[in-house]
Amino acid sequence: MKFLTFDYGNQTYYGVKVKREESAWILPKLFEDFGGGSDYPKTLLEGISTYHTLDFQEIVRKLVEKADASGNADQYKAPFTEIEFLAPVTPPNNVIAFGRNYRKHAEELDNEVQSLYVFTKAATSLVGDEATVPDHQDVTQALDYEGELGVVIGKRADKIESSMALDYIYGYTIINDITARDLQKEHLLPFLSKSLKGGCPMGPFIVTKDELPNPEQTSIVTKVNEEIRQDGSTAEMVLKLDELIAEVSKYVVLEPGDIIATGTPGGVGAGMNPPQYLKKGDEVRISINGIGTLTTYIGE
Amino acid sequence: MKFLTFDYGNQTYYGVKVKREESAWILPKLFEDFGGGSDYPKTLLEGISTYHTLDFQEIVRKLVEKADASGNADQYKAPFTEIEFLAPVTPPNNVIAFGRNYRKHAEELDNEVQSLYVFTKAATSLVGDEATVPDHQDVTQALDYEGELGVVIGKRADKIESSMALDYIYGYTIINDITARDLQKEHLLPFLSKSLKGGCPMGPFIVTKDELPNPEQTSIVTKVNEEIRQDGSTAEMVLKLDELIAEVSKYVVLEPGDIIATGTPGGVGAGMNPPQYLKKGDEVRISINGIGTLTTYIGE
Repeated sequence: MKFLTFDYGNQTYYGVKVKREESAWILPKLFEDFGGGSDYPKTLLEGISTYHTLDFQEIVRKLVEKADASGNADQYKAPFTEIEFLAPVTPPNNVIAFGRNYRKHAEELDNEVQSLYVFTKAATSLVGDEATVPDHQDVTQALDYEGELGVVIGKRADKIESSMALDYIYGYTIINDITARDLQKEHLLPFLSKSLKGGCPMGPFIVTKDELPNPEQTSIVTKVNEEIRQDGSTAEMVLKLDELIAEVSKYVVLEPGDIIATGTPGGVGAGMNPPQYLKKGDEVRISINGIGTLTTYIGE
Repeated sequence: MKFLTFDYGNQTYYGVKVKREESAWILPKLFEDFGGGSDYPKTLLEGISTYHTLDFQEIVRKLVEKADASGNADQYKAPFTEIEFLAPVTPPNNVIAFGRNYRKHAEELDNEVQSLYVFTKAATSLVGDEATVPDHQDVTQALDYEGELGVVIGKRADKIESSMALDYIYGYTIINDITARDLQKEHLLPFLSKSLKGGCPMGPFIVTKDELPNPEQTSIVTKVNEEIRQDGSTAEMVLKLDELIAEVSKYVVLEPGDIIATGTPGGVGAGMNPPQYLKKGDEVRISINGIGTLTTYIGE
């Protein structure tokens, strides 16, 4: 199941994409007309937080069936051509990001692989698929992309053993960990350079984990305009998904809807010779097999 | 005006303390009975976000007057002896913290003063006044306190000049920036060691800025049990409040309710000879003149 959050006709909704349809079933409308009562999750985060994974998916599946059989299916669907994608969830914490978790990427920036290089990206820097992100020329001349697999936490995780950790995953998404490389070098800590306005594109969907059975064996490809820049696989991650969750939750309590950005493979702009930074007019496309493509436009 | 958020009789409310009363006017009840309609802010964060500072204070003042004159004042008040203090707000982003912003503290940890040493503390590590925080013996043998002035942002701040920055402050609070010193040294980045469960006590109140006219000339005193450990003044801050807001907002968009922890004066446990870390049974009290005292109990 693919969940999303979006603006449509001046309102914000969450919804679900089923099969190959290029539209979203508008879930609040389905709950209102077929769910019996007004006591339903008002956001996707509430849906994830309130229900166990399979319960929520089962409820949604039945609602879609009813709407589909209602004879008025179209009034419950928002075509992708008419919506504005938002970040699928707003997490309780900032986005929790692992740096230096792919050997080739650590090396291209002259760093060593680190097992616990963890920082955050401001929750308010989250934007959705097809967002236009400023080039931030007033503060940086070295804006760069990082294509990453995002893990969405499904239930409270407090000191979870790695053997149990995968059970705490709700699903997966794509993250562009946009970074101002000059600021990253200038500051001792990465929070500011990683949290520029629009600096965390995420989406287009959260794909529930049943639909991505091999998240550690899937390709990540990043294109800038038509040029392939990153052509990696999550198989290259140093810390695997279960270890990432175990390590973070040893220290920090994770809540449903929290997001872990799992690091980026080699091939960022700063690692090229000469470096190639993002500029106004560029289009960045990050594709992860089984999730889709996250597109970001660089504006001014 | 002093705002707070608290649990009382199995429900969470926000409220206001007026004059020297040791109780909170329960604002949702005041809005319901005297505010005309159900369309009122459901949390303190909503109150701060929806109204300009003075509007909200004016509305609250009138509600309290009506309740006080109603003949049933007591039913609208929660005595502090019967409530559990929570963090006054849950910010949109993690708590944004400046390190090394007091010379004596930077030096006691063998660091240099840094103008932009900015990290975050997990929003889910926030707790209120009188919380019992675990000693976290399973992951640290060096749990330490840091008494800090917290700034509460009142309106969206995106690239604000320092000359305008103070206008973006809603009020002030007290923060205990609890830190696991051994983890802080071991990890290259401070997020995990600063975000343990209960690692960000905040409160007891948000004091609106009209009640703290000299926030940069106020004392910060931290006691552990009865021993004075930190005896500093916000006058010692390297970056002043207007510069902190200007510097962060140059890179990161701040939203109403966001919190900036402004750094700690000298006198933390790690700087003592020999170092004195927190242990089960300790009581940490941070007092800032004009705000009050934030008490934290160390449990297990």
